[in-house]
Amino acid sequence: MRMYDIITKKKHGGELTDEEIRFVVQGFTAGEIPDYQMSALLMAICLKGLNRRETATLTLSMAESGDMLDLSAIEGKKADKHSTGGVGDKTTLIVAPIVASLGVPVAKMSGRGLGHTGGTIDKLESIPGFQTTVPPEIFIKNVNEMKLAVAGQSANLAPADKKMYALRDVTATVDNISLIAASIMSKKLASGADVIVLDVKTGSGAFMKTKEDSVALAQAMVDIGTQCGRKVYAVITDMNQVLGTAVGNWLEVEEAIAVLRGGGDAELREVSITLASFLLLGCGKASSLTEARHLALEAVESGAAFEKLCELCERQGGDSDYIRHPERMRKAAVRRDVRAVRDGFVGEINAEEIGMSALVLGAGREKKEDSVNPYVGLLVFKKVGDYVKKGEIIGTILGDDESRTDASEERFRAAYTWSADPVSPVTPVYGYVDCDGFHPVK
Amino acid sequence: MRMYDIITKKKHGGELTDEEIRFVVQGFTAGEIPDYQMSALLMAICLKGLNRRETATLTLSMAESGDMLDLSAIEGKKADKHSTGGVGDKTTLIVAPIVASLGVPVAKMSGRGLGHTGGTIDKLESIPGFQTTVPPEIFIKNVNEMKLAVAGQSANLAPADKKMYALRDVTATVDNISLIAASIMSKKLASGADVIVLDVKTGSGAFMKTKEDSVALAQAMVDIGTQCGRKVYAVITDMNQVLGTAVGNWLEVEEAIAVLRGGGDAELREVSITLASFLLLGCGKASSLTEARHLALEAVESGAAFEKLCELCERQGGDSDYIRHPERMRKAAVRRDVRAVRDGFVGEINAEEIGMSALVLGAGREKKEDSVNPYVGLLVFKKVGDYVKKGEIIGTILGDDESRTDASEERFRAAYTWSADPVSPVTPVYGYVDCDGFHPVK
Repeated sequence: MRMYDIITKKKHGGELTDEEIRFVVQGFTAGEIPDYQMSALLMAICLKGLNRRETATLTLSMAESGDMLDLSAIEGKKADKHSTGGVGDKTTLIVAPIVASLGVPVAKMSGRGLGHTGGTIDKLESIPGFQTTVPPEIFIKNVNEMKLAVAGQSANLAPADKKMYALRDVTATVDNISLIAASIMSKKLASGADVIVLDVKTGSGAFMKTKEDSVALAQAMVDIGTQCGRKVYAVITDMNQVLGTAVGNWLEVEEAIAVLRGGGDAELREVSITLASFLLLGCGKASSLTEARHLALEAVESGAAFEKLCELCERQGGDSDYIRHPERMRKAAVRRDVRAVRDGFVGEINAEEIGMSALVLGAGREKKEDSVNPYVGLLVFKKVGDYVKKGEIIGTILGDDESRTDASEERFRAAYTWSADPVSPVTPVYGYVDCDGFHPVK
Repeated sequence: MRMYDIITKKKHGGELTDEEIRFVVQGFTAGEIPDYQMSALLMAICLKGLNRRETATLTLSMAESGDMLDLSAIEGKKADKHSTGGVGDKTTLIVAPIVASLGVPVAKMSGRGLGHTGGTIDKLESIPGFQTTVPPEIFIKNVNEMKLAVAGQSANLAPADKKMYALRDVTATVDNISLIAASIMSKKLASGADVIVLDVKTGSGAFMKTKEDSVALAQAMVDIGTQCGRKVYAVITDMNQVLGTAVGNWLEVEEAIAVLRGGGDAELREVSITLASFLLLGCGKASSLTEARHLALEAVESGAAFEKLCELCERQGGDSDYIRHPERMRKAAVRRDVRAVRDGFVGEINAEEIGMSALVLGAGREKKEDSVNPYVGLLVFKKVGDYVKKGEIIGTILGDDESRTDASEERFRAAYTWSADPVSPVTPVYGYVDCDGFHPVK
């Protein structure tokens, strides 16, 4: 088998065999296939496409290129949840405790933030003492005993994806649905869960800007998972503004606590409950979405989900006193309210710009090697459709020094577009995709 | 300007500006643009194409990536001739002396053979003493004084093409007409001639297997040359069998001598006279193709062209005694006649296989570093359409040892396909392309 022939075949629109796809992924991961051949193939794939089988085989080969987590020692159907990346997205901190409190095992591998998006690992590490590097035996033991563990991704999880992504990133071969779906799903397949719920963000702050593209990506991912024997749901949620109020690691933990205590932002609650419901349905804890939703809401109201977060915190070395009393956490040095300079309706909020506004405070990373400041961030009070009077507080910036706070405020203000006419508020959940297709929310 | 954006533009079928194309060629040649980005762009070009202007700009940028030969010190319109590569193609050895003998300056840069095709430089070097490394001043002086000089290509002629070709060769991005045309024409533009006649081979032994593809390539090359201010003709000639009789360096010189003496193979003579005629027409030595043809034939009949070859030989250090008395040349150790094992018509002759049959004797190179044996080769007597009786000699192999001769004979026989029914002989010249389009031979 020769890479040259495989490139030629795809270039002419041919269908690659499973053997050919495995040859490419294994050879590229091992460094036997050079970057220049791989980038030619990736461009041919972008322009000629991959069919369903090719996409599934590619994904599985990528998953198998490194460690495949063995969760067989965990009893029951294992649940996993993944977001395509948003700003202010702290749903994992809410969803995982809810479903775990209802007996669904969640063995969660999470990532760190990069650029304008955050990562669950960074958020959890803002809790003093919380350890995200957990030895595999302890990780499995914790899930078996308390149904929940969250750890940083193994360095050797889908190395083919890491290498391919780095190459796609510099050869303009990122925006192909099959390749994006394979990239995400390879890590999910390697993480070993039986039931996977994907939160596919759509809108200006998301990787997928239109609903059509988001649904197409969701369908591709559900299809890959289904072909590989997993139960997969993809929920299409809004990213035309920040999700919830808080952006910044500890601030987001604090907001998650508020939701788990029955309060918090309505949209954030709605997205979290929806994601949790699909996990419960997929794992067989409920026979309908309505029943699943009812269970999820009850787990919040009863306090069981909140207790599960406290338990997770203690198990992984964190001080749960901060979960029970978030007001005791160290505060950022500067607290600056941002006030509207005119009357009007909030037209758009550029979520990416809001993410950058938090990044300049030190809440995020520009480069992988950067460290994050867990205490800084911002609170976004006025959302799309809100009517705001001049002088009203639209948000609050929590920074560690004045100059960064200045820079953050500038970007924060720039993220807002104002309208003299009324604007409709955004819908937090647009619908979901399962193996039968797309189901819009009525 | 960023390579990433240029790749993205072409991927979406956009038209690259002259600045963008120059940025790519200069950056790639300088090693600033990595192979993996270039191969992604090349694949996008293969699948989305280049328009006329993009192709011409690419070609000129490639030509300008290295030395641009300055032939301004040579008086008159300078002629150049190029073949897309064939087996047994010794036309340069015939065409150049014909036109030079008629006063047209020919400053010819030639290449060496690789794989199944030969190179003019290897052929000339089979003449004892012949030097193909000529200092630029002497090269120019010779052309001014005797209208003809032939030298090996400068190592720095269109280095962008060398680097791009090496990458295309391993990334399945070779077969795009614009890229092929740019590759050939970049070297021709850098070689500085005013009038260029291209011999575009078509058929089983050629790079272009069909007449349609050959005409398309010819049109692309003529178009590039015209846009860059050169006069270009492309003659479409047959490569469904070997051109002429001889394959092998000295054997081909010997065959060229025979044609220049008024004899030799009819097809070889026809192709050579046609190519010479277009050069004469392009340089203004004749006002019609008929007149040009008449002049070319006269140069052969008068012996002027033959004397020009002798003069070239002497000027470049060669012993012209071998040109005047080719029978004095050292003979190969083994001379083996290959006889037909059955009666029948010659159906097809796989020219590539014939080329390989000469290569295994040592007449050609497998790798660039290989040296060639100038004396070995083969003579192909029976051509497509010939009726052959069992026991008749179809060809003769001239080898330096028995085992290589055995290997050569096996490939030689395998090159022939036989037919019980009559087969039409091939047409040596199909037509030509000028800036007005394709003109088939009636």
